[in-house]
Amino acid sequence: MEFRIEKDTMGEVKVPSDKLWGAQTERSRNNFKIGPAGSMPLEIVYGFAYLKKAAAYTNCELGVLAEEKRDLIAKVCDEILEGKHDDQFPLVIWQTGSGTQSNMNVNEVIANRAHQIAGKTIGEGDKTLQPNDDVNKSQSSNDTFPTGMHIAAYKKVIEVTLPGVKQLRDTLKKKSEDFREVVKIGRTHFMDATPLTLGQEFSGYAAQLDYGIKALENTLPHLGELALGGTAVGTGLNTPEGYAEKVAEKIAEFTGLPFTTAANKFEALAAHDALVETHGALKQLAVSLNKIGNDIRMIASGPRCGIGEINIPANEPGSSIMPGKVNPTQCEALTMVCAQVIGNDLAVSAGGMQGQFELNVFKPVMAANLLQSAELIGDACVSFDEHCAQGIEPNHERIQEHLNNSLMLVTALNTKIGYYKAAEIANTAHKNGTTLKEEAVSLGYLTEEEFDEWVQPKDMVGSLK
Amino acid sequence: MEFRIEKDTMGEVKVPSDKLWGAQTERSRNNFKIGPAGSMPLEIVYGFAYLKKAAAYTNCELGVLAEEKRDLIAKVCDEILEGKHDDQFPLVIWQTGSGTQSNMNVNEVIANRAHQIAGKTIGEGDKTLQPNDDVNKSQSSNDTFPTGMHIAAYKKVIEVTLPGVKQLRDTLKKKSEDFREVVKIGRTHFMDATPLTLGQEFSGYAAQLDYGIKALENTLPHLGELALGGTAVGTGLNTPEGYAEKVAEKIAEFTGLPFTTAANKFEALAAHDALVETHGALKQLAVSLNKIGNDIRMIASGPRCGIGEINIPANEPGSSIMPGKVNPTQCEALTMVCAQVIGNDLAVSAGGMQGQFELNVFKPVMAANLLQSAELIGDACVSFDEHCAQGIEPNHERIQEHLNNSLMLVTALNTKIGYYKAAEIANTAHKNGTTLKEEAVSLGYLTEEEFDEWVQPKDMVGSLK
Amino acid sequence: MEFRIEKDTMGEVKVPSDKLWGAQTERSRNNFKIGPAGSMPLEIVYGFAYLKKAAAYTNCELGVLAEEKRDLIAKVCDEILEGKHDDQFPLVIWQTGSGTQSNMNVNEVIANRAHQIAGKTIGEGDKTLQPNDDVNKSQSSNDTFPTGMHIAAYKKVIEVTLPGVKQLRDTLKKKSEDFREVVKIGRTHFMDATPLTLGQEFSGYAAQLDYGIKALENTLPHLGELALGGTAVGTGLNTPEGYAEKVAEKIAEFTGLPFTTAANKFEALAAHDALVETHGALKQLAVSLNKIGNDIRMIASGPRCGIGEINIPANEPGSSIMPGKVNPTQCEALTMVCAQVIGNDLAVSAGGMQGQFELNVFKPVMAANLLQSAELIGDACVSFDEHCAQGIEPNHERIQEHLNNSLMLVTALNTKIGYYKAAEIANTAHKNGTTLKEEAVSLGYLTEEEFDEWVQPKDMVGSLK
Amino acid sequence: MEFRIEKDTMGEVKVPSDKLWGAQTERSRNNFKIGPAGSMPLEIVYGFAYLKKAAAYTNCELGVLAEEKRDLIAKVCDEILEGKHDDQFPLVIWQTGSGTQSNMNVNEVIANRAHQIAGKTIGEGDKTLQPNDDVNKSQSSNDTFPTGMHIAAYKKVIEVTLPGVKQLRDTLKKKSEDFREVVKIGRTHFMDATPLTLGQEFSGYAAQLDYGIKALENTLPHLGELALGGTAVGTGLNTPEGYAEKVAEKIAEFTGLPFTTAANKFEALAAHDALVETHGALKQLAVSLNKIGNDIRMIASGPRCGIGEINIPANEPGSSIMPGKVNPTQCEALTMVCAQVIGNDLAVSAGGMQGQFELNVFKPVMAANLLQSAELIGDACVSFDEHCAQGIEPNHERIQEHLNNSLMLVTALNTKIGYYKAAEIANTAHKNGTTLKEEAVSLGYLTEEEFDEWVQPKDMVGSLK
Repeated sequence: MEFRIEKDTMGEVKVPSDKLWGAQTERSRNNFKIGPAGSMPLEIVYGFAYLKKAAAYTNCELGVLAEEKRDLIAKVCDEILEGKHDDQFPLVIWQTGSGTQSNMNVNEVIANRAHQIAGKTIGEGDKTLQPNDDVNKSQSSNDTFPTGMHIAAYKKVIEVTLPGVKQLRDTLKKKSEDFREVVKIGRTHFMDATPLTLGQEFSGYAAQLDYGIKALENTLPHLGELALGGTAVGTGLNTPEGYAEKVAEKIAEFTGLPFTTAANKFEALAAHDALVETHGALKQLAVSLNKIGNDIRMIASGPRCGIGEINIPANEPGSSIMPGKVNPTQCEALTMVCAQVIGNDLAVSAGGMQGQFELNVFKPVMAANLLQSAELIGDACVSFDEHCAQGIEPNHERIQEHLNNSLMLVTALNTKIGYYKAAEIANTAHKNGTTLKEEAVSLGYLTEEEFDEWVQPKDMVGSLK
Repeated sequence: MEFRIEKDTMGEVKVPSDKLWGAQTERSRNNFKIGPAGSMPLEIVYGFAYLKKAAAYTNCELGVLAEEKRDLIAKVCDEILEGKHDDQFPLVIWQTGSGTQSNMNVNEVIANRAHQIAGKTIGEGDKTLQPNDDVNKSQSSNDTFPTGMHIAAYKKVIEVTLPGVKQLRDTLKKKSEDFREVVKIGRTHFMDATPLTLGQEFSGYAAQLDYGIKALENTLPHLGELALGGTAVGTGLNTPEGYAEKVAEKIAEFTGLPFTTAANKFEALAAHDALVETHGALKQLAVSLNKIGNDIRMIASGPRCGIGEINIPANEPGSSIMPGKVNPTQCEALTMVCAQVIGNDLAVSAGGMQGQFELNVFKPVMAANLLQSAELIGDACVSFDEHCAQGIEPNHERIQEHLNNSLMLVTALNTKIGYYKAAEIANTAHKNGTTLKEEAVSLGYLTEEEFDEWVQPKDMVGSLK
Repeated sequence: MEFRIEKDTMGEVKVPSDKLWGAQTERSRNNFKIGPAGSMPLEIVYGFAYLKKAAAYTNCELGVLAEEKRDLIAKVCDEILEGKHDDQFPLVIWQTGSGTQSNMNVNEVIANRAHQIAGKTIGEGDKTLQPNDDVNKSQSSNDTFPTGMHIAAYKKVIEVTLPGVKQLRDTLKKKSEDFREVVKIGRTHFMDATPLTLGQEFSGYAAQLDYGIKALENTLPHLGELALGGTAVGTGLNTPEGYAEKVAEKIAEFTGLPFTTAANKFEALAAHDALVETHGALKQLAVSLNKIGNDIRMIASGPRCGIGEINIPANEPGSSIMPGKVNPTQCEALTMVCAQVIGNDLAVSAGGMQGQFELNVFKPVMAANLLQSAELIGDACVSFDEHCAQGIEPNHERIQEHLNNSLMLVTALNTKIGYYKAAEIANTAHKNGTTLKEEAVSLGYLTEEEFDEWVQPKDMVGSLK
Repeated sequence: MEFRIEKDTMGEVKVPSDKLWGAQTERSRNNFKIGPAGSMPLEIVYGFAYLKKAAAYTNCELGVLAEEKRDLIAKVCDEILEGKHDDQFPLVIWQTGSGTQSNMNVNEVIANRAHQIAGKTIGEGDKTLQPNDDVNKSQSSNDTFPTGMHIAAYKKVIEVTLPGVKQLRDTLKKKSEDFREVVKIGRTHFMDATPLTLGQEFSGYAAQLDYGIKALENTLPHLGELALGGTAVGTGLNTPEGYAEKVAEKIAEFTGLPFTTAANKFEALAAHDALVETHGALKQLAVSLNKIGNDIRMIASGPRCGIGEINIPANEPGSSIMPGKVNPTQCEALTMVCAQVIGNDLAVSAGGMQGQFELNVFKPVMAANLLQSAELIGDACVSFDEHCAQGIEPNHERIQEHLNNSLMLVTALNTKIGYYKAAEIANTAHKNGTTLKEEAVSLGYLTEEEFDEWVQPKDMVGSLK
C-alpha cells in the first residue's frame, strides 16, 4: 500500500495515497477499532454535505468566505450527495461522542477533493482550502454533528418511516372496509367473547397507526430545529451576525424540508431530547405494530389446529423439515423489528440522559439508533404490507363455525333476563356441551322464538357506519 | 372476625361483616396475594367513581335507569370521591389484566353502600341495586377500566406533573435572567472550552423543560379519549343509542377536564398506546431532568476540590461519619426519580406491546406505572425547585478563577491568526504551564495589546438579549 | 399536635412528640415530599437492625463500645425486628442517594428508644446513646446502607423468590410426568407442526425455571458480600482492626445466612453491580415466566373458539358484562408481574451505571426495585401455582381432534419418500381440504397400509423416558 | 444480469447465475427488503458451517448418510469457514423468526457448491446433494439456527469479549498497584470526602470487572448447550438414535469448545433464555464500564478548570474549532458502547419473552444483538485499554493541592473529640474560608500539635496491602 503524509496540529500521519481523507480521519481509524469499519451511517455524512454547502453559501453572503471557495465546497458537497465518495468515510460510530472526527473527515475530504478539482495533486503546493479555517468556517463539531444528525433523521422519517407506516395504515383501513360485514366472534383475555366484525377488528389496527403517525408528526418541529450557529458551546463564537438563521434557511432550501434554527443553542448542543422525543414516537409505533403483527399471526394460525379465521399469503416454504408448512414470516420479521426498536429506544435514552455541561457526547450512538429504527419501521411496514396485509382474506367457513359455537352470544340476553340468569344459561351449556338455545329453553327463561329473535350475532356488532 | 355471606354467579363467599365489598372482591383478595394488599392506585378508584356517576346519569337520561337508582349511585360515588371509602378497595395491581375485579369492587361497594343509604343492612331483603345490572349498566370492565385509568392519568398529569415541571422551569428561567451576565468557562467533553454565561447555561435547562412540557401536552388529546361505550369488545353492545358521546360529556362536566369519547373503541380496548404515548413524554422529561440534576450536582461540587462554580442550599447534614459535609441531595432524589421513570417506561411498553385480539390485559400494570411516574416527576420537580433550584447562587470568585485560567480563550484568535497558530499557542501554554498571553507574544503571533483587545471573555459569549 | 425540639449539627428541629426519630429524620420528611410517605422498604430498616446490632457487638468485642451500650442497641434492634417500631420510619425512597437519612433515622430511633429503656423521657438529661458516635460507631451511611440493602435483598431472594419459583417448577415438573403420554399436535410459528406430548411441552417450562433458579443462585455469592467496614470511602477509616470480617460474621450469625465481608470495599460503595447482577437473573425469570404464562393462556383458550387443549381452574366470574365467562386471570397477573420486573431491571441498571467516584448515589431506588421484583416473582409464582398450574388438566377430546387433523404428520414420510414428495402430499391435502392419507394414496406415493404404519403420532414424539 | 432457474416445493425462481444460493434464499431476498442487505451476521453462517459438517459426520457414522456425501458437505463447510463464500449469504436479520431461510441459504450453497466440486455446473443433471434430504438430514431450522447462534455467541464471548475485558482488567489492576501510595482526596456525592489512594480507587474498577468476568463465565454452561437433535419441535423426529449427543461432541471437537447437547430440547427451541442470561452479564459489564469510563473522564477533566488529578493520553486534536483542545475520546467511545449494550439487552429480552408454544421466533434479532454486544464490549475494552488506560498517570501536583485543601480530613477527629465538635470545626472553616487547623485550635478543641499528629491523610487510607 502506498501512503502520503498528512498533518494536523499534533503532527504527521501516514494516509493511504488513494484516499481523500486527512490526518484526523486516519488517527480515528487507528484509535477506534471497535466493531466493523465504516459503521457511521452515510446518511449523517450526507447531512454534513448539506450543511457544509449551506455554511459556505452563508459565509460567502455574509462576507467571510470568498466565492471561489464557496463554489469549490459546494461542488464537493454535491459530489458527496451523488454518492461519489461513499468510500471516503471509514469511521465508526464508536469514536469521540461529539462526532468531531466525522466532522473532520468531511472537512478533510472536501479540502482534498477541492484541491483535485482545482487541478492539483493532494499535498501539492499550498492547500486550496483549509479544513478548519475554510470548510469548517463558522462551525464547530458541536453544532455541525447535531445538525447533520437532525437532517439525516428528519429525512429518514419523512422519506422512509412515514410513507411506510401510511402505506400499511391505508391497507388496513381498506381491509376494514372490505371486511365491514364479516361478523365473527370476539376474543378478550384470549377467550371467546361477544361478536364484532372483522372490519371492526382491522379498524382498530388502522386507528393504532393513525395515532402513531400523529405522534411521530408531533415530534417533527423539535427535530427540525438545527444547532448550527451555536459553534463550540452554543454562544455562536466566531460566526458572523445573522449566520444561524440564514444557514438554516439555506439548509431548508437545499433539502426542501422545513428546517429552522434552534431556539436555544445551548439546549441544542448539550441535550438531544429531540432525538429522544422522535424515537419515543418510533417506539410507540413499534408497540402498536407488535400488537398488530402478533394478532394477525394468531388469527391466521392453523391451518387446522389454530384460530384460522383469516388466510395470509404463502410466500415461501416454511420449514426445512416439515413439508408443506407455511408460516406467518412477515409477522415475524415485523415483530423482530419491533423488539429492535424498543431496544434502540433505550440506547437513545441512555445516551440522552448522560449529557454533561455544554455538550452531550453520545451523539453518534443516539443518531445511529434513531436512523436504524426509522428505517426498519418504514421498510418493515412496506414488506408486511406488500407480502402479507394486502393479501389477507377471511376464512368464512371457519369464522361462521366459531361464531355459531360461541357461548358469549348469551350476553345479548342481559337486558332481557338479567346478568345472573344469562350466566346460568351459559354455565349450564358449557358444562353439558350443549347449545345456548337448548339450555335457555330448558331452564324456562325464554322460548325458542325469543331466543332466535334476541340472539342475533349481526345485531350485536353495533353500528357499521 | 365476623363474616357475612355474599353471592355471585359462581356461588357463596364469606366476606368480613364490616366491609362494603362483595363476593367478587373477596375472591380476588384470596386469589391474588401478590405483593402488598391494596396496591391498586386509589386514583383509579376515583376515576371509576366519576365514570359510574356519569354512566348513571346518562343511563337515566336515555331511559334505561330509574332516577332513584341514579341518585343512589351518584351519592355513593360522591362519598368515594370525598375519600370516605378508601379502605373498601383492598385489591392489588396483580389481578386480572382487564381490571374486572376492581370494576366489580366498585360495583359491589356502590351497591352495598346504596343499600345502607336506603336504610337497610347489607344482605337484608332484596338488593336495592344490582352490581352488574344496575351499577354496571351499559358498561363492561373492558371499557370502564381504561376509562378509569385515563381519567386518573389525565388528572395526575394536569394536577401534579405539569404544575411541578412548570414551577421548576420558571425558576430555571428566572435564574437564567439573574445570571445573565455572569461570564464563566464552558465545558465540552467535561474539558475546558470557550466561555458562556451562567445564564446561558441555565437557559438550556429551561429550554429542555419547555420542550418536555410541549411534548407532554401533545399527548393529552389521545389520553383524553375515553373507551366508555365500547363495552365488551368495542361494539357498544347493550348500550342505548348516543350513550358513548353523552357519557364522555358527563365525565368532562364532572371532572372539569376536556374528555371526549374515543374515536375508535376497538383501539381503545385492545391497545393502550395512549398510555405508551404519554409515558413516552414522561420518559423524555426524565431524560432531561437527569441531565439537569447531574449538571447542577457537578457545577456545585466541592466545596474545595471540585468545580464549585455555584452554591446550592445546605438542607441537612450530609454524612453520618464526615462532620460538616453537605451534599446535593435534591439532585440525587431527582435523578433517582428519573431512573425509576425510565424503568417504568419499559414496563408500560412491555404491557402495551402484548395486547391480544380485542383486549389488552396489562391494563393495571400500565396504569399504575404511569400514575407513579406522573406523580414522582411532579413531586420531584417541586422538591428540587423549593429546596435547591431557587437557592442557587453563583460563586463568583471561583467562576472568575476558572475563567482566567482557561486555555480555550485562544479560540477567539482563530479568525485573527488561524486555527493552526492558535493551537500552537494553546499547546505551548499547556506544556509550559504558562498563560496564553505569554506564549502568544513569545511565539511572535501577536502583541500584548492585540491579545488584550482580542481575547475578552465577555466578547465571546454572543448576544445576551 | 405536640412537638419537642431535637438538634443536629445544623441546629434545632421540631419533631412530633410521640415519635422516636430525631432532627435529621424530620428534616428529610420535610425536604423530600416525593410520592407517598414511608416508601423506603421496611425490609431495609430490618437489614439495618441486623447490622446495627452486629456492629454494636463487634465494637464491644474490639473494645470501642461499652457493654451497656451494646446491650441497649441490641435490645432496640430486636424490637425493630419484631415489628414494634414499624411506624417510626417515615422516609421515602426519593431522598439522598446514599440513604444517609434512613441510616440516621435508624440511629435516631435507636438512641431515643434506648433512652426510654434506660428509664428516661426523650430529651431528658444527657443522651444515653449518641446517634453518630455510639449507634453509628465504626460506620458510615456509605457502608451501612449497602449492607442493609444486601441483607434485605438476600433474605427476600432466599425467603420469597426461590421458594416461590421452586414451588411452581415442581408443579410443572409433576405435570410433565402426569402428561407424559398425552400425544398432541405441536405448534411452531403458531402453526401446526409435528406432534409431541403435553408432558414434553411442560418439561420445557420446568427446564426454563431450572435454568432461572440456577442463574439466580449464581448471583448470591456477590450479593452476600457486605460493604460494612468500608465506612466513608472504602478505606475503613475510624474502624478498629479486624472489624470488617468480624461484623460480617455477626451478621451471618444473626441472620443465619452466609454473608461475608466484601473483598473490595471501594467497589462495594461505588458500584452496586451485585444488585444489577441479581436483578439480571430476576429479569431472566420474568422472561421465562412470561413465556410460560402466555403459553398456558393460549393452550387453554376457548372454550369453543380457541386452542382449548387444556382446562385451567375457573376461580372467579371473568366478566362484568359477559355472563358465564371465565378467564386465565392468573396468567394475566403473572405476565403483568413480568412486565414490571423487566421495567424494574432497567431502573436498577440506570442507577447502577451512574455511580461517580467513591459512591453510587442511586442506592435506594436500586434496592427498592430489586426488593419489589424479588417479592413479586415469588408471590406470583405461588399464586399461579396454587390457583392455576396445579389444576391444569388435558382436554383429551380436543387434543385428539387436533392431532388427527394435522397435516404436519406428513413429516414422518421424509425419510421414506423424501421431503419434496411429502410436501406435495401436504400441499394437495391442504388445497383440497382432504386427509393426508387420501392424497398420499391418490398421488401413488404409498399404500394405505404403508401410511398407517409410517404415520403414527405416538411414534413421532421420541423417547419419553 | 444473467439468471438460472432454481426450484423448491413452491415452484420456480430466477436466481443470479453467478450465485451459489437457490430458490428459497432468493425468495427471502425478495420478500424481506428491510434494512441493508446481508445483515444476518456471518458468525452465524460460520456456526452453521460447523454444525452442518458435524451433522454430516454424525449421520454418516450412524449409517444414514453416505461417506461421499459427508465428505462433500464437510469440504464446502471448510471453504465457508475459510471465508471463501462470504458473499453467498445475502439475507437479513428481519426474515422468518426461526431463521429457516438462513438455514436453507446454507443448505442451498452447500448443495450447489458440492455439485461444482463434483465437477458439474449448477443445474446440470441430478443434484449431487439434496438441500433438504442430505445437507439438512436429521435437522430442522428449529434446532440448527439456535445451534448456530449458540456456537457463534460462545465463540465471540470466548474470543473477543473475555480477552478484551481481561486485558483492561489487568491494566486497571496494574495501575492500582502502581498508584498504591498516591494519597488523594475521596469524593462521595461528588463532594469532597475523606482520602484514599489512587490505587484504591482503581482497585475498585478492577474489582468491578472481576465480578463481571465471573458473571459472564457463569452463563457459559447454559450457552454451551446445543439444540441440535431436537429437530422440528424438540422430539428429535427423523434423527437416528444417539444423534444428539454425538453431533454435539463433533461440534465440540471441530470448534475446540466445550459444547454439550441441551438437557431439554423443548426449552432449547421454544425459549432462548440462554441468550437472555449471557446478555444479562454483558449488560452488567456495560453498567460497570460506564461507571469506569465516566469516572476516568471526570478525574482527568480540565486541564485547568476541572478535577485534573490524572492525565490521560492525548490521541488526537479534540476540536474542530477550539485549538489545542484534547478530549477523553476513549471514555466517550466506551460509554457509547455501554449505552448500545444496555439497549441491546432489552431487544434480547423483548424477543426472549415472546416465544410461543414449541418455538421462539425472535431468534435472529436475539442472536444479532448478542453478537454485536459481545463484540463491542471486547473491542471497546481493548481500544480503551491501549489508547487510554495504559497511559494514565497521576497529576501529583493537583492531587496534593486538593488533598491539602479538603475539609473532610476533619473526620479523623471523630474518635478524638466526637462528631459534633468535629462538625463545628469543619463548618466554621468552610464559612470563614480558613483551614481546619486554624479553626480547631481557635475553637479550643485541640492543640496544633494534636492536630498535626491526628490529622494525617496517609493514616486515613487504611491498609495498603
